[in-house]
Amino acid sequence: MSIPTAAIVIIGNEILSGSVVDKNIPYLAKKLFALGIRVKHVHVIGDTTETIIETVLHCHKLYTYVFTTGGIGPTHDDITADAIAKAFQVPLEVNKKAKALLEKHYGADNLNEGRLRMARIPEGASLIENPSSTAPGFKLHNVFVLPGVPEIMQAMLDGIANTLIPGPPIYSETIQCFIGESIIALELEKIQVNFPEVEIGSYPYFKQKTYGLCLVIRGTDESLVKAASDSIKILIQQKGGTL
Amino acid sequence: MSIPTAAIVIIGNEILSGSVVDKNIPYLAKKLFALGIRVKHVHVIGDTTETIIETVLHCHKLYTYVFTTGGIGPTHDDITADAIAKAFQVPLEVNKKAKALLEKHYGADNLNEGRLRMARIPEGASLIENPSSTAPGFKLHNVFVLPGVPEIMQAMLDGIANTLIPGPPIYSETIQCFIGESIIALELEKIQVNFPEVEIGSYPYFKQKTYGLCLVIRGTDESLVKAASDSIKILIQQKGGTL
Repeated sequence: MSIPTAAIVIIGNEILSGSVVDKNIPYLAKKLFALGIRVKHVHVIGDTTETIIETVLHCHKLYTYVFTTGGIGPTHDDITADAIAKAFQVPLEVNKKAKALLEKHYGADNLNEGRLRMARIPEGASLIENPSSTAPGFKLHNVFVLPGVPEIMQAMLDGIANTLIPGPPIYSETIQCFIGESIIALELEKIQVNFPEVEIGSYPYFKQKTYGLCLVIRGTDESLVKAASDSIKILIQQKGGTL
Repeated sequence: MSIPTAAIVIIGNEILSGSVVDKNIPYLAKKLFALGIRVKHVHVIGDTTETIIETVLHCHKLYTYVFTTGGIGPTHDDITADAIAKAFQVPLEVNKKAKALLEKHYGADNLNEGRLRMARIPEGASLIENPSSTAPGFKLHNVFVLPGVPEIMQAMLDGIANTLIPGPPIYSETIQCFIGESIIALELEKIQVNFPEVEIGSYPYFKQKTYGLCLVIRGTDESLVKAASDSIKILIQQKGGTL
């Protein structure tokens, strides 16, 4: 069974300038990981048509799935739908179903030009339902186009999660401990060599003025993950660390 | 005066799988923005030599500066220094100055193989001082290689900030208000057309069960930023929004 892969493309000048802190990467990453889909690359790019086209097409060719967030609202800086349509060389038109949804939500008299902008969907795309605020996202080929507001994006992603083809489950064990990373580095590498099917990550952190270490052991074979994890726990205790 | 640009390359499987939430993008983005350096692209990639080489070389050619975080610790999954040396086809050797720093910090007898790994620096690179935990980062060409632990990365970035060539200051005004984005969308676009030198971003958010709108107006000409911002405030009030 091959492992499905994904790229995440976060679109928005506000993230690049640091004026807004992204919350979509962690949510998407966790959700996809739980489905056995491996995120291989995350791009954060600005509201520039050429960059969106180039990045999305690049990821479209390389990965099973591509998820974009941001730039599908009603304002002038919302250019993602235009860029995706251009990328796949299809027209961007007011989608009847999307328009009907917005009419029902806002009332036909209140469907101003700004709101109608959110009904423009590339030809051939299927709509992604938005249970929070109605304006839909869309899927074209393997590209899922989602909004940037985290709460809305999350609800929409949750709604489509069961349409994604999952990969083999990835088992994961996390060991939180207090020990200098360099004290166990060599032996940890030996354990990694002994368990080539398992991925061992070592992440030092600094919290409440103390250095801690977080070890993450992952793989698709649960018994190997457990065996590698047990070896690491023994190593930490042998070297005087505390679990 | 040309505006310097930058790319950020976050290296670590733990971010891609969602097991660690990145804190380095916002810090780097804000810091660089304050220096008038425009971040154009952020990449989050895994601990894979080929991907690191490809991504760093790509950014090295396109932007004034490249900042990487992660993968320069003592463990087997810390492969950034190796990858950067390979990317620029220079040897990776134990750097005398880096070794002396680590010897002083840990004591010569305690400089085990894991720790010594952190003294391996690509030939021709200059060291970046680490005031928190000694093990240095390095700069090779226009690439700054920093660690992944946020507190350590931040202290190191602060230390080198004054060595970066700043761009013209970017003035920024933020308007927090309560109004539907689509209600002002058309007129906001007109203001954007009237102020082409200014960048107007519109970011809806959802907080405490209420939708709010954050408008960010930016540019290198302070008076234009102020004038555009004033026009937007008037628009919001005319359309019944509250500031």
